[in-house]
Amino acid sequence: MRVSVIGGSTVSESVYEQAREVGQLLADRGHEVVCGGRGGVMEAVCRGARENDGQTIAILPGSNRQSANEYVETAIATGMGNARNALVVLNGDAAIAIDGHTGTLSEIGLALDYGRPVAGLDTHRLDGFDQFEHVENPTAAVEYVERAVENQPNAQGRPARE
Amino acid sequence: MRVSVIGGSTVSESVYEQAREVGQLLADRGHEVVCGGRGGVMEAVCRGARENDGQTIAILPGSNRQSANEYVETAIATGMGNARNALVVLNGDAAIAIDGHTGTLSEIGLALDYGRPVAGLDTHRLDGFDQFEHVENPTAAVEYVERAVENQPNAQGRPARE
Amino acid sequence: MRVSVIGGSTVSESVYEQAREVGQLLADRGHEVVCGGRGGVMEAVCRGARENDGQTIAILPGSNRQSANEYVETAIATGMGNARNALVVLNGDAAIAIDGHTGTLSEIGLALDYGRPVAGLDTHRLDGFDQFEHVENPTAAVEYVERAVENQPNAQGRPARE
Amino acid sequence: MRVSVIGGSTVSESVYEQAREVGQLLADRGHEVVCGGRGGVMEAVCRGARENDGQTIAILPGSNRQSANEYVETAIATGMGNARNALVVLNGDAAIAIDGHTGTLSEIGLALDYGRPVAGLDTHRLDGFDQFEHVENPTAAVEYVERAVENQPNAQGRPARE
Repeated sequence: MRVSVIGGSTVSESVYEQAREVGQLLADRGHEVVCGGRGGVMEAVCRGARENDGQTIAILPGSNRQSANEYVETAIATGMGNARNALVVLNGDAAIAIDGHTGTLSEIGLALDYGRPVAGLDTHRLDGFDQFEHVENPTAAVEYVERAVENQPNAQGRPARE
Repeated sequence: MRVSVIGGSTVSESVYEQAREVGQLLADRGHEVVCGGRGGVMEAVCRGARENDGQTIAILPGSNRQSANEYVETAIATGMGNARNALVVLNGDAAIAIDGHTGTLSEIGLALDYGRPVAGLDTHRLDGFDQFEHVENPTAAVEYVERAVENQPNAQGRPARE
Repeated sequence: MRVSVIGGSTVSESVYEQAREVGQLLADRGHEVVCGGRGGVMEAVCRGARENDGQTIAILPGSNRQSANEYVETAIATGMGNARNALVVLNGDAAIAIDGHTGTLSEIGLALDYGRPVAGLDTHRLDGFDQFEHVENPTAAVEYVERAVENQPNAQGRPARE
Repeated sequence: MRVSVIGGSTVSESVYEQAREVGQLLADRGHEVVCGGRGGVMEAVCRGARENDGQTIAILPGSNRQSANEYVETAIATGMGNARNALVVLNGDAAIAIDGHTGTLSEIGLALDYGRPVAGLDTHRLDGFDQFEHVENPTAAVEYVERAVENQPNAQGRPARE
């Protein structure tokens, strides 16, 4: 499947390493990564995925696709600014949120609005959403989204051909 | 100024009346309302604003501008689905969130990301955001956004000609 | 009805006057103007419309609604760059193209794709499109779009409440 | 480099074969294909590219990425309808237009507006645009866009890392 990984563009070293591990795990289990293409969590998750030969897709806010971080395989420029946040989460079957600030909060909301399950790792505390689960570590994040997508076999976001 | 009012499309009667009062107050103080143009909070706030001869603008997810609620003066169709959420909050100088679910959560995140102050009335509990304030009633919501915009005179969202 | 007026952002004085006359005529006949909100044809048509107390709406490429020309009544910022061209023509029931270059060409294509009739005044020569008509002057432009919209009563773009 | 291929979604067999040959040539020369992801020209060019192991990217109007044609490797859903046309051409360094109707006309305009050179093959007759060239066959189309991109080494669309 394809997993949107969302999070801050400037992060601490420990958050960076967590995001990198999420990328490694996703690629190891055969999942594609889609993200916003910039630094911090976005760079770390692409880096981890590439270390395990995973596919990495970026949907960028700007209009120059060369601005993607160096671990992005397929960069899509939008020139749409924050309106591209919707596309980042629309293009995954589920999302993992790591750290992050206001942009990440918006993407969690958009992901849930599209019916995507979201695992939250060291991110905003949110209560009362069925498909949002706080998790303790990268493995738990990946396992949550795998299980959640498996349990919604007819969801719009479910990949038919992957 | 222009205030984005965001919230659920299906709401209880008491939430509807709160949103209507927000609309009445905004119009009474000379502010324009911008919203998502549909039912619930969006209809109520436009209705209240129109009762006091206020200007109401809707930015719709669909491609037919006739789908706006009947209290919308200027309807803008986008055909962009949830990606339009960014435009709803970009087009206000501040936002008031009333009730709401995942779409509203995304709009709060987007508003804060654009630097817009947000008053939350019976909506998601969010902590740790400088420009987000939980308020107790419609008057407090309007007063908060007025004060917050006044205190950021050079903000991008600040209206120069209004 | 609402008419999208599209054209170049830097134009000669004679083109400017033609666009201004289009705006005057549209307002005089009770139609709203929607445009891209910048200079040249966009400024001229809004100016003409305001001279006859018409309503003018701008859908801007940038994220600051203060960048609209001074004759715009309701400015909508998008921050989406050229992707906003689609919204300019989606939000009219018909379009009038005056002069212009590549952006205008794209808007003619988008307008026709949405099923909007287009009158072309001193603009690109295009053949083979049913709903595109070259016209000789502002009056002919306005008369063409009035007639064309009247003849497609069930079109998506037809206003129901105006 | 990456080349946007634009054209009709329902085409004759001979147009289909031309588009397929364009895809074969682009892949054979190491270029990626980006398109709108649907049938007709979009399917044919992806099919041809895949026959030569090329990379194919689709930017879809709808919100379900499974709706891409079967020769698309990386599908991006937008849910933005025609507003996605801008993204199709923004994401190539140049464009090749084959046949097509109003949507293709809009994409030619948008490509030129972004400064992308465009080769036209059996498509709209357009005069007076510096970077638009009518070509006679698939080879001439590919050679034109290669040459045109080479001659604008500092263009925004020029790939730095490919």
